[in-house]
Amino acid sequence: MSDFREDGAAALEWAARYLERVEELPVLAQVQPGELSARLPASPPQEAEPFAAVLRDLDELLLPAFTNWQHPRFFAYFAVTASEPGILAELLAATLNQVAIVWRASPASTELELRVVDWVRQLLGLPEGWHGHIEDTASTSTLAALIAARHVTGRNVVVCSEHAHSSVEKDARMLGMELRRVPADDELRMRVDGYDLDDVAAVVATVGTTSFASVDPVRELAERAHAAGAWLHVDAAYAGSSWICEEERWSADGVELADSLVLNPHKWLLVPMDCSLLWTARPDEFREAFTLTPEYLRTADDAFALADYGPALGRRFRSLKLWAVLRCYGAEGLRAIMREHVRLAELFAGWVAESDDWELVAPQRFSLVVFRRHGSDSENEELLSRVNASGEIFISHTKLDGRYVLRLAIGNARTTEADVRRAWDVLNKEAGR
Amino acid sequence: MSDFREDGAAALEWAARYLERVEELPVLAQVQPGELSARLPASPPQEAEPFAAVLRDLDELLLPAFTNWQHPRFFAYFAVTASEPGILAELLAATLNQVAIVWRASPASTELELRVVDWVRQLLGLPEGWHGHIEDTASTSTLAALIAARHVTGRNVVVCSEHAHSSVEKDARMLGMELRRVPADDELRMRVDGYDLDDVAAVVATVGTTSFASVDPVRELAERAHAAGAWLHVDAAYAGSSWICEEERWSADGVELADSLVLNPHKWLLVPMDCSLLWTARPDEFREAFTLTPEYLRTADDAFALADYGPALGRRFRSLKLWAVLRCYGAEGLRAIMREHVRLAELFAGWVAESDDWELVAPQRFSLVVFRRHGSDSENEELLSRVNASGEIFISHTKLDGRYVLRLAIGNARTTEADVRRAWDVLNKEAGR
Repeated sequence: MSDFREDGAAALEWAARYLERVEELPVLAQVQPGELSARLPASPPQEAEPFAAVLRDLDELLLPAFTNWQHPRFFAYFAVTASEPGILAELLAATLNQVAIVWRASPASTELELRVVDWVRQLLGLPEGWHGHIEDTASTSTLAALIAARHVTGRNVVVCSEHAHSSVEKDARMLGMELRRVPADDELRMRVDGYDLDDVAAVVATVGTTSFASVDPVRELAERAHAAGAWLHVDAAYAGSSWICEEERWSADGVELADSLVLNPHKWLLVPMDCSLLWTARPDEFREAFTLTPEYLRTADDAFALADYGPALGRRFRSLKLWAVLRCYGAEGLRAIMREHVRLAELFAGWVAESDDWELVAPQRFSLVVFRRHGSDSENEELLSRVNASGEIFISHTKLDGRYVLRLAIGNARTTEADVRRAWDVLNKEAGR
Repeated sequence: MSDFREDGAAALEWAARYLERVEELPVLAQVQPGELSARLPASPPQEAEPFAAVLRDLDELLLPAFTNWQHPRFFAYFAVTASEPGILAELLAATLNQVAIVWRASPASTELELRVVDWVRQLLGLPEGWHGHIEDTASTSTLAALIAARHVTGRNVVVCSEHAHSSVEKDARMLGMELRRVPADDELRMRVDGYDLDDVAAVVATVGTTSFASVDPVRELAERAHAAGAWLHVDAAYAGSSWICEEERWSADGVELADSLVLNPHKWLLVPMDCSLLWTARPDEFREAFTLTPEYLRTADDAFALADYGPALGRRFRSLKLWAVLRCYGAEGLRAIMREHVRLAELFAGWVAESDDWELVAPQRFSLVVFRRHGSDSENEELLSRVNASGEIFISHTKLDGRYVLRLAIGNARTTEADVRRAWDVLNKEAGR
């Protein structure tokens, strides 16, 4: 145990130093595919090495090959944060090594999970009685929802927006379900009027699409889905977190009608990867799709059998980090960070709107700005390459009506106004070359 | 960051103390369903609390509700170990918070994963050219394998042994595939002679079944599956790790013919939950089942697109802990621990075999002993309840030909001969009451 204390102190110091210096590192890894592989030994070690050797190689070999998601100028995809309480909770979770296959295998992990997920439900204003648990990612949560939808409806078709996340398509493909993508309206909102939903198992609505943070009309979609006997699943993986702020609840309109809903605290609620919450308004039917326990064999423990609500049997102690983050920030602390992110996004969107050289290409929603430089697609694409190659910021792109457009997503707790201003400066500097 | 260092030191000290005192705690949580829930606040915190409050509640609220998987007298299910290098690697992984959705999002996580999984392949003696990556659990790995099998064969039937893990049944159910369980022979080995496999997508063979650690005849099953155009998936989640020892390679006979194989280093290779390795001998066809990238759009990066080999898009930095464990123990260190576990299992099996009051009910394989007390099923069931309620040991049970039988699984790195002897003493003491 003396080794553990000593090695642990070194690991902790490495972690503290990393977080202190992360903003001095390039945001996007400046390496080529295969470059790290060429430096890693081809064969496994036969003899034991000290933990210090691992830390040394973390610095010397691996560090240049990290894209630094903790960097305050990480603006790509959706920016995320592994907060300090969340990080330390992962240390504790690994130490305890709970494998919550059934209630008795970890009463603490199981019951804490149900409670903290219910805490989040309350903070978001979702209906009482919903059953929530933790999956690894939204891909898996939506996979579980589609499995439940197919089980309940006996149908095999999934409908989503042209702007829905790729995971919906992948999930349907894995399950052998047919996917129908429907076009969105001018406000990038999914419309199903005019579509026959009578053979549809699930309609997937998105609150906060990955490309544009656009918001589908959940109430209308839910009503139409239910009228046709279909399941309504809501993908609020990113934007749902904003509902902890009253002023963002407009985008939650109708979600109380959902049959299931996914939200990822590892996106905008400061929880380290991975933590995806999946609620269902129909827990009994949902469970039926997964459980191998016949009704007549159910015991008191089975009320806590969380493996009956998703694909995996073995369940990691993910609730600990969510618990730690909720307590160490409090709802007020989380709201303050989120509001600052939205303010920074509005600020950036304002600069774009006021500029003669740039344009907003979608309404600014939540903490995402979608924009482009006046000029051709290839000019924008080359601009993106240059700013990311600078290492100073990392942004990503998407396409709208075939046009190449840029995305700046704010979501790291360390991001300040100065970081956003720097992003603007870097973009203008590189565009001016 | 001063907070992080201070809180981190407290978390680390909590972890060190836990590992020091874990053997003084009851192995199985001595609480009733709902007991912890009643003590947890019903509503989420609005104001921030110090991290010290989390650590306090970890002790006061949660600790009695943990089943202590790190306890040296945990002999239930399959016993596991979160080793110290693995624990500290999880701290570092959470700090770095890599989200490896595509290569550029984390070149380090992606390339390290490919390399360390290949290191394990070499240690196990599996064929060159197999493509391996990390999933969370064997349930997910087998799910992915069945998805690939259905994609490749265009068929919808899964065949496995009556003794195959429940996850095979759950996976088939989730995918809407038909499951056929076939009876095993007197040595608990799956037999498919006499079965028509012409409509079968996948045959799942198990090396080291959960109930008995029995070993299916992989070579024969692979030959029959392939002759019928079916996919052969091998579930070696537990026992496959033993192949790092030459003397256990007998159980690997024929696995070189497999189309896919799952092995969980979080079981017997000292890696904290969760880490499940999935290899395929047919990577191109496997990838086709998952990828949304058409062939003509593939780039150099896509060779590293690990999300194309399983359900999730977002991938946690799991390779770091596997790397740390392999290096800090070395293959020789891992072999020494595994051999000691097998020796202890043989010792315990010898005591059972020599006793007039007990009997072995299945051949002792790897580190698992399956046995029972002479007497009725209900006597054995009550005995199990009493020994687990003592808190001194935790063992689990299974059924063989309808009989209630006990399982003692050795797999924790802290387990000594004294612990196994204590288990034997506790069993005899409680049986004598």
